[in-house]
Order: sequence, then C-alpha cells, then structure tokens
Amino acid sequence: MPNTFGHLFRITTFGESHGGAVGVVLDGCPPRLEISEPEVQRDLDRRKPGQSLLTTQRQEEDRVTILSGTFEGRTLGTPILMLVQNKDARPGDYAEMKEKFRPSHADFTYQAKYGIRNWQGGGRASARETVGRVAAGAVARKLLREAFGVEVLAYVKQVQDLVAQLEPSSVTPEQIEANAVRCPDTAAAAAMFDRIDRARREGDSLGGVVEAVARNVPVGLGDPVFDKLEADLAKAMMSLPASKGFEIGSGFGGVLLRGSEHNDPMTVEAGRVRSRSNRSGGVQGGISNGEPIVVRVAFKPTATIAHEQDTVDESGHEVKLAAKGRHDPCVLPRAVPVVEAMMLLVLADHWLRQRGQCG
Amino acid sequence: MPNTFGHLFRITTFGESHGGAVGVVLDGCPPRLEISEPEVQRDLDRRKPGQSLLTTQRQEEDRVTILSGTFEGRTLGTPILMLVQNKDARPGDYAEMKEKFRPSHADFTYQAKYGIRNWQGGGRASARETVGRVAAGAVARKLLREAFGVEVLAYVKQVQDLVAQLEPSSVTPEQIEANAVRCPDTAAAAAMFDRIDRARREGDSLGGVVEAVARNVPVGLGDPVFDKLEADLAKAMMSLPASKGFEIGSGFGGVLLRGSEHNDPMTVEAGRVRSRSNRSGGVQGGISNGEPIVVRVAFKPTATIAHEQDTVDESGHEVKLAAKGRHDPCVLPRAVPVVEAMMLLVLADHWLRQRGQCG
Amino acid sequence: MPNTFGHLFRITTFGESHGGAVGVVLDGCPPRLEISEPEVQRDLDRRKPGQSLLTTQRQEEDRVTILSGTFEGRTLGTPILMLVQNKDARPGDYAEMKEKFRPSHADFTYQAKYGIRNWQGGGRASARETVGRVAAGAVARKLLREAFGVEVLAYVKQVQDLVAQLEPSSVTPEQIEANAVRCPDTAAAAAMFDRIDRARREGDSLGGVVEAVARNVPVGLGDPVFDKLEADLAKAMMSLPASKGFEIGSGFGGVLLRGSEHNDPMTVEAGRVRSRSNRSGGVQGGISNGEPIVVRVAFKPTATIAHEQDTVDESGHEVKLAAKGRHDPCVLPRAVPVVEAMMLLVLADHWLRQRGQCG
Amino acid sequence: MPNTFGHLFRITTFGESHGGAVGVVLDGCPPRLEISEPEVQRDLDRRKPGQSLLTTQRQEEDRVTILSGTFEGRTLGTPILMLVQNKDARPGDYAEMKEKFRPSHADFTYQAKYGIRNWQGGGRASARETVGRVAAGAVARKLLREAFGVEVLAYVKQVQDLVAQLEPSSVTPEQIEANAVRCPDTAAAAAMFDRIDRARREGDSLGGVVEAVARNVPVGLGDPVFDKLEADLAKAMMSLPASKGFEIGSGFGGVLLRGSEHNDPMTVEAGRVRSRSNRSGGVQGGISNGEPIVVRVAFKPTATIAHEQDTVDESGHEVKLAAKGRHDPCVLPRAVPVVEAMMLLVLADHWLRQRGQCG
Repeated sequence: MPNTFGHLFRITTFGESHGGAVGVVLDGCPPRLEISEPEVQRDLDRRKPGQSLLTTQRQEEDRVTILSGTFEGRTLGTPILMLVQNKDARPGDYAEMKEKFRPSHADFTYQAKYGIRNWQGGGRASARETVGRVAAGAVARKLLREAFGVEVLAYVKQVQDLVAQLEPSSVTPEQIEANAVRCPDTAAAAAMFDRIDRARREGDSLGGVVEAVARNVPVGLGDPVFDKLEADLAKAMMSLPASKGFEIGSGFGGVLLRGSEHNDPMTVEAGRVRSRSNRSGGVQGGISNGEPIVVRVAFKPTATIAHEQDTVDESGHEVKLAAKGRHDPCVLPRAVPVVEAMMLLVLADHWLRQRGQCG
Repeated sequence: MPNTFGHLFRITTFGESHGGAVGVVLDGCPPRLEISEPEVQRDLDRRKPGQSLLTTQRQEEDRVTILSGTFEGRTLGTPILMLVQNKDARPGDYAEMKEKFRPSHADFTYQAKYGIRNWQGGGRASARETVGRVAAGAVARKLLREAFGVEVLAYVKQVQDLVAQLEPSSVTPEQIEANAVRCPDTAAAAAMFDRIDRARREGDSLGGVVEAVARNVPVGLGDPVFDKLEADLAKAMMSLPASKGFEIGSGFGGVLLRGSEHNDPMTVEAGRVRSRSNRSGGVQGGISNGEPIVVRVAFKPTATIAHEQDTVDESGHEVKLAAKGRHDPCVLPRAVPVVEAMMLLVLADHWLRQRGQCG
Repeated sequence: MPNTFGHLFRITTFGESHGGAVGVVLDGCPPRLEISEPEVQRDLDRRKPGQSLLTTQRQEEDRVTILSGTFEGRTLGTPILMLVQNKDARPGDYAEMKEKFRPSHADFTYQAKYGIRNWQGGGRASARETVGRVAAGAVARKLLREAFGVEVLAYVKQVQDLVAQLEPSSVTPEQIEANAVRCPDTAAAAAMFDRIDRARREGDSLGGVVEAVARNVPVGLGDPVFDKLEADLAKAMMSLPASKGFEIGSGFGGVLLRGSEHNDPMTVEAGRVRSRSNRSGGVQGGISNGEPIVVRVAFKPTATIAHEQDTVDESGHEVKLAAKGRHDPCVLPRAVPVVEAMMLLVLADHWLRQRGQCG
Repeated sequence: MPNTFGHLFRITTFGESHGGAVGVVLDGCPPRLEISEPEVQRDLDRRKPGQSLLTTQRQEEDRVTILSGTFEGRTLGTPILMLVQNKDARPGDYAEMKEKFRPSHADFTYQAKYGIRNWQGGGRASARETVGRVAAGAVARKLLREAFGVEVLAYVKQVQDLVAQLEPSSVTPEQIEANAVRCPDTAAAAAMFDRIDRARREGDSLGGVVEAVARNVPVGLGDPVFDKLEADLAKAMMSLPASKGFEIGSGFGGVLLRGSEHNDPMTVEAGRVRSRSNRSGGVQGGISNGEPIVVRVAFKPTATIAHEQDTVDESGHEVKLAAKGRHDPCVLPRAVPVVEAMMLLVLADHWLRQRGQCG
C-alpha cells in the first residue's frame, strides 16, 4: 500500500520534508546480520543535500539513528526503525507556494486528492522522502553482499544530450565517486558539470538518465507473472520523484532489432550456463539468469525553478510564480544512491521470496 | 504476490498455455455492475491468435465462461471466475524444447528456479497467460466507463524504425481496428504490415512500441509514495511478456529539455485547472491531474523464431535450436488489448483506493 | 483481502453455492510436489453433503478437477486451479428466501452491504464455499507430511452439553472416521448421534465444539507480532461459517489458574527442549515450540431450520419464515475436514515464511 | 506481514521493550482529521505501567510525539509516525534471563526461530509493544466517532472465577475508569482487587476475561469470506500477548442452545431492521448488522512470576528460575485500552474497505 514497498523484505517510509522527521521501518530483515549506524550513514551521506555546487544548498546533516530491531550490533529479525530528524526547515522560502501551485509539481494533485497539504516544501513528494529508502537500501546491500557478493552500482549515464560511454560490467565505485556528477566517464562528466552549473546560474534545471547494474545476482530471483524482476524494478524506479521512464537491457533501443539479432545466444562457460550477449539485461521471463542486471531510469528536469512561470492559485486564478529558495539544478547526482537503494530492496525481497517458495 | 495484481480491484490469473485452462479470479469488483460474457468476449477476440497473417496461426477460440460472482447479469461483490479452456495444444511442436532452452526465453530461468517446467508451450511465460488479464480488464472498462466515462485506448506506435504520427488525445477505436497492425496512422500501418509480413516469411520476428492513452480520468487517482500511478502502470506494463521499457508523458525524450521548457504551464479552462501542455502525461506527484494519461511500452522481438540459434540443453551441452511451429512474427497487434487491460486494471484499483481513503 | 488467505502459501476461493462452480486458486505452493486429483478428492469426500443421516441430504458429488499448476503429476510452482462444478442446485427450495431474510443468517447483511445477493442458497455465506479450502488443505497436508511428518487431525469434541473424553496427542484418523459424528470417544459419539438425529427429526439444529491437533510441527513457525500462529489460526477458524469462538491450549479454562499453576515447566528430553505440560497449546509468544498444537472452535447451531421464526422481508415488513429444503441439523461432522484444512493452510504458510526470513 | 495490521487503515508497530523507542506508523488514515498529541496521550496513559498497585511498577511516562503525517493539527493522508522513547530500562533485572528461558514465555521460541534475542525484557513479545497499537487506536477512535458516533468500550469481565454482572449495551466509560481493576461491577471489582493484590504479594499472577463492545457501528462492515469481521477481530485479539481465547456473541456458551433458541428473531424498529436478541454479537455472515458488537478475550496469568520454576538454559541444561523485578500480577486492567484499540483498528479498516468497494 501507499507507503510500503516489498513483501518479505519490506519497508514503510514516513515523513514530510518539513515535518519532525523522515525515515523508515524495515520489516522482515533476516536475523543476525551485523549492521551499524555508520554503515547506513555512508549511503545517506551520498544522498544528502549540499555535497557540491550542483545540488541544493539546503543544509541537512541527515544523521541516522537506529531505534529498534538491533541488539549488540546485530539484527533481531524484528522491525528496524531508522530515523533522521529534520533540521534545516525554512518555511519562509515556501510562503508563496501556500497559495500557488508549482507547475509540473505535486502541489495541485495533492490538494485535489486530500483537500490539504503541507505546503512547506514538497511534503511527501519531496526527494527528502528517499532518505528512508536509502537507509533501508544500506541494510539490503550488506545482506546481499554477505550472501552472494552482490554488487549494485548506479551512475549518471546522460545529462540532456550528453551521453557517457560506459561498460556496466566494469564500472567501479571509485570511478563513480570521483566527480560531483557521479559519472565515471571523466570527459563526459566534465561537460555535464559545466552544463549543470550553467543551468544552476540561470535558475533553471536539467534532466538525464541514471544507469544501474547488479552483479553476482544468483539465478532464479523474480516471480512470474506480475512480480517479474523487471516489473518490480520498474515500479521501484518509477516511484522515484521526477522519473519518467524505465528500461531494462536493450530497452527502447531493442525494438530496432529483429529476433535473430536480439536473442542472446546461450553458451556454457566453466560449467555455468551463460549468455554471449546481454540484451536481456540479466532477466528472462521475469527471473534473473545470472548475467548482470542492467536498467536505466529517465529523470525529467526538476520542476521547481527560479524562472517565472504561468500557474494557478488555490482560488482558481491564473497567476505567475518564480520559486524562491535553494533549488536542485539537477537531481541526477543525488539520485544515484537512491536508484542503487531501490535495486537492492527489490533484490533482497526477491531473494527471501525465492527462499520461501523454493527452499 | 506472484500471480495477483491490484489491491482493492484485484486479479489472480492462472493457467499454463498447454494445461487444462487459463483464466482469472477478479476479487473486489463493486456490486451491481451489469456484465455479460459477450462483453468480455469482445476484448478477448481482439487478443486471440489467428486474427490475421501477422499473428500466430495457433487456433484458439478463447471462449470465456463466467462461473461465479454474477447473478442475473450483475456482479455480486464476490469473486468473479472467468475461465477459458485450452483447445489447440500441440505438444509435438515443442518436443525439441523439452531438452533445449530457447535463447532469451523463460525456459532456462524457470528450470533453474523451480527445477521443473511445462515445456509444452511457454507455461506461465506464454502470452496465453494474458487471457485472464484481458477478461478482467473488460470488467474494469465497463466499471470506469459507467462511473466517469473513462476511455482507454492503445495502438501500435512503432515497429522497428517505422514510427506512426498520432495524436493520443484524438485517436478513435475505429481507427485502431481498421487494420491488422492496429496502427491508426494508415500509411505507417501499411509499411508496418509489409515489414512484419516479411519477417514472418523469413521465420524471424520484430519488436516495437505500443502507446496507450486514458481519457476522462478523474483528478486524484494514484497514491504517493510507492504506489504512484506511473509506478503501478510501469509494473503493470513491465509484467507483460517481452516488454523491455516503459515511459510516461515526455519519457526518455524529456531529458533533453530544461525545466523551463519541460514544465506544463497551468491554466484555468471553464472553471477547471488544466495544463497547457501534457509532458507530465496526466500524472503529477504520482496522482492523476485530469489530463489524458499517456504511456508507451517497448516490446522486444519475440524470442521464439524459426532461425537456427546457439543454445544449451538441460544436460549443459551446447546445441543448435530452430523452433518449429506457429510463431508470432510480431506481438504488437495482439498486445494492444492487453496493454489496454493493464491500464484499466490500474485505474480501477486506484479509483477504489481513492474512494476508500478519501471518501 | 476478502477472498484470499495466506501470504506465501496462499489461497483465493470463489463460487456461490448455486452458481456455476466453486473452487480455489492456490498460489505459492513449492514446486515438484507430487499431487493428484484422488488425493484431493479424499478430503473433499469427507466434507461433501449426504454422507449420513446427520448431514444435509443435498446430493453433490463434489468431483474436483485440477486445471492448472501441475505437470506430469507434480506441482510447477505456478497457481493451482481446483474446480468443482455445482450440480444439485434447487433454487425452488429457496424461493421464499428471495424476499425474506433468514434470522441469524447472512441474508440481511449481504443485502445491506451489496444491495444485491444470490438468494438461491447462501451464496458465498454457504458452507459450500469451504470446498476450495479443503481442496487446498489437501495439498498443504501432503506438503507438510513430506517435509516434517506433520499430522493434523480434527474431531468433534462436544455437541451441546455432551463432551467427549479425548487425549489430543493420541487420537487416530481411524477413530475419527469410525462413526458418522466424527467423535473418537465411542460412547460420547453414540449419545451425540442420538441427540443430532432427534434435532433433525424435529427440524431443529445443534451446535458444538471441534478440537484440532497438529503433531510434529517444527519449532519456530509463527511470526510476532500480529501474525502469531494463534492469531492466524484464530482468524482461520473464525472465518468459517457458524463459528463463534476459538481457543488454544488452556483457553478460557486457563483463566482459572494462577501463573505458578499455568506455566508449562520446561525440561530436556532426548536432547530436545520440551514442556512437561502443554497449557500453551504448542505455541509460545506466537511461535511453535514443538509440542502438539491444540485448538478448539465453537460452532453455533445452524441458522437455517424448519421451525417457524419471526423475521422481516426486503420491504421492511415483519413476517414468518419456516425454511424448506434439506438442512444440516449439525455442521460439526462435516466441519471436521474443514477445520483440518484451515490448520494445514496456516502451518504451510508459516513454514514458507519462516524459510523466507530465517533460511 | 509480521508487524503490520490492517489493509487500508493500517499500522506497523516497532520497538523492543528495552530498545531505544517503541511506536507505530499509521498509514491510510483519511485526510483532514483533527488529531493532537494529548488525545493520543489520553489512551496511552490508561495503558502505561505504574497506574496502581495492581500493575507493574516499572516507571514509564510513555510520552508520545507525532513526528509526521499531520499539519497544523490535521492529518495529511500521509503516514503518521507516533514515537515513545524508552526510559526505565533496567537490564540488570533481566541478567538471569540472558541464559535461562522463562517457562511459557517467548524466550525459547524467539531464540529457536531467530538464533538471537534481546533478553533485556521481552523484546517484541513484551506488552510494551502494544504502545503503538493504543496510539493508533486513539486515531481510529476519533475517526469513527466523528463519522458515525461509534463508541468502543472494554472492561474486565472476569478474574479467575470472579465474574462481573454487566450489560454490554449500557456500560459507561466512567464506570470503567472508576476503579483500578477497570471492572464496572463495583462489588465484583472489589473482590477482584483483593484477589489480584494477594497474588501480587505472593509473587504470582492471575488471568481473566476482558469483554468489549462497539456501539453505533453502521450496517455492512466486514468482508466475506476470510476477512469476516469476527475473523479479523479474533486475529486482532489473539495477537495480544497472553491471550488464549476469543469469542463473539454467544460464543462457547452458545453451543448449548438449539437453533430455534439461538437464532436472533428479526424485527423492525423505527423503520430499522433490528434483532430482538443479540446472540450473533452484532455480526452475521461476517458483516455487521447494526447491533452492538460484543466480544470476549481470555488472558492467561502472566508468565513472568517470582516463584521458582523448572526450566532450561541456552546450553540445554535443566535449571531453576525465579524472575526478579517488577512483574505484572494481572495484565487485565492495562489490557483494557489495548483491546479497545484493536477493536477500533479493525472497524476503521473495514469502514474504509467498505467505502472502497461499495462506495
């Protein structure tokens, strides 16, 4: 239901961007996993605002506290509550939005659906909601690494028309963290940085594509029919603020090929069934085949910009709005750890489901 | 869970392509809705094999029977069982697949996951599973049409590099059904027909894009955070066999624009809040804003082809496979009613959820 | 949701008593379990009407067909559809109930909730709905027997004030099936038979208590907090038609004891932790402790009787009703296999859940 | 799943008794409901320890903070996080339990299931977990009172063999709160007080029965088949620590009657369909019929007592245990607000579900 994701490894996030706190309850994590606040903090630090010029200058430490579900540094098999207090709330920045709906934002639809909204910040529609996802994702990361050596990485693949040249199977975490854009193609990263910085100075925003890869995923995760791995990954990614598209493996580009060109020839390597190419993106019939799982997510340019725009107010009048405050000229660098988290959550859930049904 | 979709308006499909029957249990349909077998049959007839040269020549009548949940032609508020017997099973066509895995198909992953599979046809991975979805979608169609005049249409937008020129807000059902491709752009449809027919003759297959639009959707459907309308639509579409990508509104193309170009300016028309453009695709913050909902789904070329391919068998040997039988050179024309059904199911579910939480 | 029970081993039942069919979709059954129609039929035969004078004389063969989910006699890991056609529908017997609500039956509440009801028989409120439960329970029985040698037995413990003297840990299936009452205490069974037969001749009905025991259940099944084993068992049993009470272990009688008398002393037997008494009923803190699980379910006397009663009709007039037709003077003998089925379903589900979370 | 209850009005509780905090996330509460911390605190104060000699002397203020989901005193339609910090943790009292399992407690089963447990206090098995239920129940109470004037009351009906004489339809909140036992029959209450006080002085514990009634419940709540109102109430109550039995209406006592005696004659009163008696307990066919809903819950005597008992330790040795610390000689007075909360949560959930499916 609305604020819950996953079946056996399952999270419920809570918190408005300008309420008391944001966070997550993670239910169903297997017992006896070693986990500590610093391990969770590491991923949260990659998501927090103010990391570079390219991101919103809102100041939030995003310090996580684990309030339940662990004992002497290990999980109990009970719900894990991870909480982050909100600090840098400046409702003043949002005063104008009390009356005016931001175009292409959730202001109007929330008001229409609920008849009320927290107009200070985006409420639940704020990217701040993803704090809880990233915290839970850090636990999933530890769990899957220890179980199978699974490695999940995301990075910026495209900003506007600037496309990085990258091989998903060999990108490293260090390459990703080497620049503020989180794009491992150094030349592309530099061009992207300039492009984003220009948009920032002009009070505008940019969109792009994040690519993610999961390596060492065991064969057999994913459930036909509705809970295909790619279906749950699609839902996970399309539930992120500002995402407009999802694809796996060959994706939209794959429609140009014929079946004889698109099918991945099968082979045997060191006694293991492999695919010679990976247009399937690591999933066939909704189930992982052991090859790297590769997905891409399209993010639109952030809706909140400083430019003056045509909009309407709560009384139904046409008005102008130029948003004040500290906008994010491009969500992509901060979206990277969130995309990783969603992929990890889907994989952890399907691992437990696979173990439940098939032993 | 695996074979169930939706929360309040909720379906469970069952059936292997070569088992006794396929179908669906629909639970949660509001009571007192008039529904009859012919109404359901109409959509099933658009999905069934053998409609034209372009689709598989398997002969299935796909005659639906409603076995529970209605009384004197109206729904009871109890589970509706809709059943279709399997008729044209020719296991002989599949004998070779008992041992050999079809490349880019579910054969290998099912076997790895379950340690068993129905090798006669694709089992649950067969497009035949979608019979139940279409049957339930027909009920959702009736429900939403009567409640709000909602109209959901899908059509073929692209085959390989052939792209139709279409305006989602004005396409009609008659235009869609006017040709075997189900593409309302007549010129494009003719070219697509030739292209698919050639692939068919050559034992090969083609992919493409289906676009779908929902009109007259009320404002307020969709649930932040995880059950955003676009997230549930993405899951719905990516759970279809052969789908590799999903986008809503501007989609992947939207990343080329700046925020100031991408945002939909808001306006008031006849007392109603409207968007002057619709790059949002009818959804903002996960909630419908009253504009047409527009999505696109990428389908890869069908995996089962007559070409000889490199593959492996159950014993782990590298072998060659050239599939016998009656293949679908292009799933798109038959995918059209299935895409419509999935969109209808998501909307019906979210309507009931909205009514439940918000009255 | 309404017609679905269980999380990983999960059933959805469908069918009105006088519709086309009743049955069940079982989703989540592990793959490669050998299961055949005769094995399922065996339990259905114990539930079907017309077995003795004591039960309704409605004639139903209740012949089950497995239409999906198995292949060459083994489960596929996909949904198993088990269907029973309705044969002996005599709507004429119910003509009076089209207008008049049976007291203490579901007629009035269904009509109030849905604004429509299938007045021919009890619709979904009929005991006929339990056909699907019993069919799925037969699969759970096979699964649990093969995995752990689990044995689940139920029997009639009490009819009105006639209470059988029985030791749950040693009752055998043969003792239960030895008489029409399904009470293994032969003397009590004879008295119960006479009492029920008298009620039958007088057009009246009787209630009583069914006791059930599960032996060889592994330690560790059940989930704190809300899905405690006793909570899920209680829901399972209280979802049966005519049930009014549930207890586990010492139950309502246990409130008479002090803690020092009620606690089960722990001991070690053959290297295994055991309880010297079993007032806990095999569950502590919601989790099985390896001792026999013992529960009791109270069933009220059947509501449909031949006696004339005060009631109201659809127009809101006070009227008299004396039900025609073939009533069940006592549901208990036929409830026995249904109680077993519900216990089996809960245990199977919790086994898979335990395996999922804890490995 | 384990720590979540409800479908549309849905809670997830978290927290060990000696961890950092306990509390609840409430998801699905309708928007625009006025709710404040003091309103929630009122019910929590009735549950907290140390209210009288009869309850544990552990000192906990149980001060609640609402950290999300409200804005300017009204609900937003988003998840409501209610948090209570743990204060009075004295792990020293539990040192012996690090090694020894308390008989009839969750120590052994948790250890067996998870391979780890928080031995300081009962962890999730502690009655402290119910803090979150009561907090959410306070919100449900407000919601249902405003919508229908629903009133839910519970009280102590029985302690050991002392049974109060009470009429569920006329008990008042003031009568319940008039004494420390929370039994509105003054004479019985005095005898119960003495009995409990004696057990307390002797280091022992007592069990009993709590009765609960819901008045002004609208007709039509509850869902056949598995989610019957009584089934969900049974699960709710049997998920409470120490509960061993549940009954509705006539319950176990009803089995003594014949159908002609047990059926509730129907009548029309002031244009409304009524029952002349209420042996059904306000529910027929799983759906509320507008009469008061009356249920009873049996609680065993608390497992943790000061008496020396036979038990085993983690190494599998037979040992003696006499629990130190501040035990609850009788959970009943503090269970009263928890039973009310569970009934409120079930009703709130089914109201939203009814509204969702039937409008």
